Amino acid sequence: MMTYRPLFFITGLVLSKMAFFMYFPMLLAFFGNTLGSIEFFFAILITHIASAIFLYLGGEKQRSHLGVREMFLLTTGVWLLSSLFAALPFVLIEHISYSDAFFETMSGITTTGSTVLHGLDTMQPSILLWRSILQWLGGVGFIVMGVAILPFLNVGGMRLFQTESSDWSEKASAKTRSVAMDILIVYLCLTICCFIGYRFSGMGNFDAINHAMTTISTGGYSTSDSSMGNFSHFAHWNAALFMFLGGLPFLLLIRAAHQRTLEPLWRDAQIQGFVKIVLVCAISLSLYLTMTGQFSWADAIRLSVFNVISVITTTGFGLDDFLTWGDFSVIIFAGLLFTGACSGSTSGGIKIFRFQIGFSLFKRQLMLLMHPHALFPQKYNNRKVSDDIVRSLISFLMAYMLTVAVSTLLLTLFGSSAAVSLTASITAVSNVGPGLVESIGPSGNFADLPSASKWVLSFGMLMGRLEILTVAVMLTRHFWKR
Amino acid sequence: MMTYRPLFFITGLVLSKMAFFMYFPMLLAFFGNTLGSIEFFFAILITHIASAIFLYLGGEKQRSHLGVREMFLLTTGVWLLSSLFAALPFVLIEHISYSDAFFETMSGITTTGSTVLHGLDTMQPSILLWRSILQWLGGVGFIVMGVAILPFLNVGGMRLFQTESSDWSEKASAKTRSVAMDILIVYLCLTICCFIGYRFSGMGNFDAINHAMTTISTGGYSTSDSSMGNFSHFAHWNAALFMFLGGLPFLLLIRAAHQRTLEPLWRDAQIQGFVKIVLVCAISLSLYLTMTGQFSWADAIRLSVFNVISVITTTGFGLDDFLTWGDFSVIIFAGLLFTGACSGSTSGGIKIFRFQIGFSLFKRQLMLLMHPHALFPQKYNNRKVSDDIVRSLISFLMAYMLTVAVSTLLLTLFGSSAAVSLTASITAVSNVGPGLVESIGPSGNFADLPSASKWVLSFGMLMGRLEILTVAVMLTRHFWKR
Ligand SMILES: [K+]
Ligand SMILES: [K+]
Repeated sequence: MMTYRPLFFITGLVLSKMAFFMYFPMLLAFFGNTLGSIEFFFAILITHIASAIFLYLGGEKQRSHLGVREMFLLTTGVWLLSSLFAALPFVLIEHISYSDAFFETMSGITTTGSTVLHGLDTMQPSILLWRSILQWLGGVGFIVMGVAILPFLNVGGMRLFQTESSDWSEKASAKTRSVAMDILIVYLCLTICCFIGYRFSGMGNFDAINHAMTTISTGGYSTSDSSMGNFSHFAHWNAALFMFLGGLPFLLLIRAAHQRTLEPLWRDAQIQGFVKIVLVCAISLSLYLTMTGQFSWADAIRLSVFNVISVITTTGFGLDDFLTWGDFSVIIFAGLLFTGACSGSTSGGIKIFRFQIGFSLFKRQLMLLMHPHALFPQKYNNRKVSDDIVRSLISFLMAYMLTVAVSTLLLTLFGSSAAVSLTASITAVSNVGPGLVESIGPSGNFADLPSASKWVLSFGMLMGRLEILTVAVMLTRHFWKR
Repeated sequence: MMTYRPLFFITGLVLSKMAFFMYFPMLLAFFGNTLGSIEFFFAILITHIASAIFLYLGGEKQRSHLGVREMFLLTTGVWLLSSLFAALPFVLIEHISYSDAFFETMSGITTTGSTVLHGLDTMQPSILLWRSILQWLGGVGFIVMGVAILPFLNVGGMRLFQTESSDWSEKASAKTRSVAMDILIVYLCLTICCFIGYRFSGMGNFDAINHAMTTISTGGYSTSDSSMGNFSHFAHWNAALFMFLGGLPFLLLIRAAHQRTLEPLWRDAQIQGFVKIVLVCAISLSLYLTMTGQFSWADAIRLSVFNVISVITTTGFGLDDFLTWGDFSVIIFAGLLFTGACSGSTSGGIKIFRFQIGFSLFKRQLMLLMHPHALFPQKYNNRKVSDDIVRSLISFLMAYMLTVAVSTLLLTLFGSSAAVSLTASITAVSNVGPGLVESIGPSGNFADLPSASKWVLSFGMLMGRLEILTVAVMLTRHFWKR
């Protein structure tokens, strides 16, 4: 039987944290004399009350052991409930429908970055800040979840990245807490560095804070409708650098920081793959853009590097509309749309290690075809690629395709074109942001989609962020059996 | 070291068979007093000479043991060389470029069915017959290859369907020959039944013969630009039935014929999956087409069943242009475009068993997430799904995606739009025929693509037909090392 009380308790705790973060935009509105302080006050009040109710239902803090099913329910439940309350300020201040507000919130907290809001340049600062905070929280929440929860649940082959045995002992849990703290510190440091970079690039304080939060979380919300187009070349390179860093495995960043050497980073197979893909795509695109006479060398390189990193890390910042660059570019970006960067980073998508393992299985298969009786042991990052990993990898791919397919079919039924439905679904499930059709592309907006589609996409974003299987498991009948 | 002499010998034998089949269109032209007898005579002459040269190079018939690498080289080489010569009549009679002729031939022999020829309705009968013969030969050639060669090479998890141990002993080879003969008989019987069905539907002898050959081979070439649109409703249902039969595993058809019961067919997991997918897709489409008011019930059901079977079996016959049915339909057909029917049939694509195994891995993974320490043995058709199978399955998927990606990128570089490049590549590699963009869709034509694209697509069709890995293995450096 499912024990719900500890779940209520933890949900209550998380909601109170969520309410705490709402104070920042409230104070900004209050002292900056802009709209939103009253509205945020009400949102805080409601969230606090909900938090109190959950804490009350949860009872005393319990040391009770959470079963596997409770963990799944908790993980999904916390993200879902947080979003329900975090959406309130959008309804109260922007007077948009709750569907729109929920879409915007889910898009923020899952670091997807698709938006339904128009006129960002003249929007209330409190709302802009709240969007950035959602992404920033979602980013660090995802990394911590990836270290503290998912490996224990062995979702989608992530056990490959586990460093310790996966028991729930006191010792392991203390260790996990200390790792989570390290992650928070590195994340905060990167955000500050990114902020300083943006300030140097000529951004004002407010823009720099917001973009720093949405860059490092690979979220992609901006304070301007023209996204990064508004800012200097230096800002573009700064963004590219920190999106790239946001796409690295944070545990390795921590190790590098501890050992004061970049060696753990160079030696990692996944990072090597990441760098290679970025280089190959950026160079081909630069060549293509200059040879077709669309841009000068300098612009081509800047735009290519920026956009390749923006899409592969699933950030989704816009800088020039790459959909107008020709079909070769579109196909490159279509491929990057579901690639994603490194596992253990803030980025979404299928993640590079899965492609690397798949590709090495392919190469191994070719060798096996030539030498059927030879042994070809398979390693990844010096670990054996177990049959378990291979099986969970293919399950993940199936789950990913199935999710995208169902979402796409629903969207066409709600009236969107095939191309919009498909790329909107991929961009949502991969947590990237922009689709590959003008209306929802880097210069587009999701506002015009029907409400039902927005709920489908919101759910897709959530599934994508929780590595799909975490949510899919709850859609089985067996899960709810006593 | 590679031994080439037996390869030359077998190639010579196959070319002489190819020349033999050219006599049919030559005789048709001669006695029908239509164009082509002289041209086919020259093509036969050239092919015979080439055959003789190969036989001479091959020397005496040798009982020498072929190594694995020789088998790969032979398999690909035979398909490629046959196509080179089989393309001659198109050049000589239709006066099209050799690129176009090669594309048409490869499209025929791989049972893809994409065409570059216009004006089929007024075309020389000899050429129409030659196109149908190519598909008919390609279809049976593929099944025999799938039984006699691929399982020994364990390409893409096909060892799952092996019934005997895979040694190359005399006994096994005799057994293989007898199975090959059984296949030929069943194939011939089905072709004749299909022909009779078409005759009853009101088709003339010539149309019925041609369509019977291209239906059972799931090839899809027609004698009319409007494909099946020209014929009666009865013909459509006849086509649907025999395309469906062409999508079944031939070994099971043989077993059913031997045992005079349909039981082996009902009990097969792959056939069950095939039927389920067809039913689900056809019913959803029928509902969609009637509810959107596009067709009456009767028409909706006929068109849905016909087109779903046509695409999933990778036949690609056109009947009404499903691209105009709305975006929901387009997405359904996009999914079916790479599904394919059963392994061991004439159809191409990824094949249903791979999706079934992937999906059952997914379901098993969900159970494992809930019960990490339980054992969930995995069976498919009462056989254990070994780790080998799983690994070769993921290699196949990677190889498929990689092939489609490279082909798509090349096509965009040669100037096609992203959508044309992508769906042309998928349709080629899956051996379906029509793409999902008007210009190359069910009512379209591949003639307007640049020559370079046609060569890329021809190669894609060949790779798709040979289960990709068979060709991919030859693209490695290791293969050619002494
Ligand atoms: K994003
Ligand atoms: K076909």
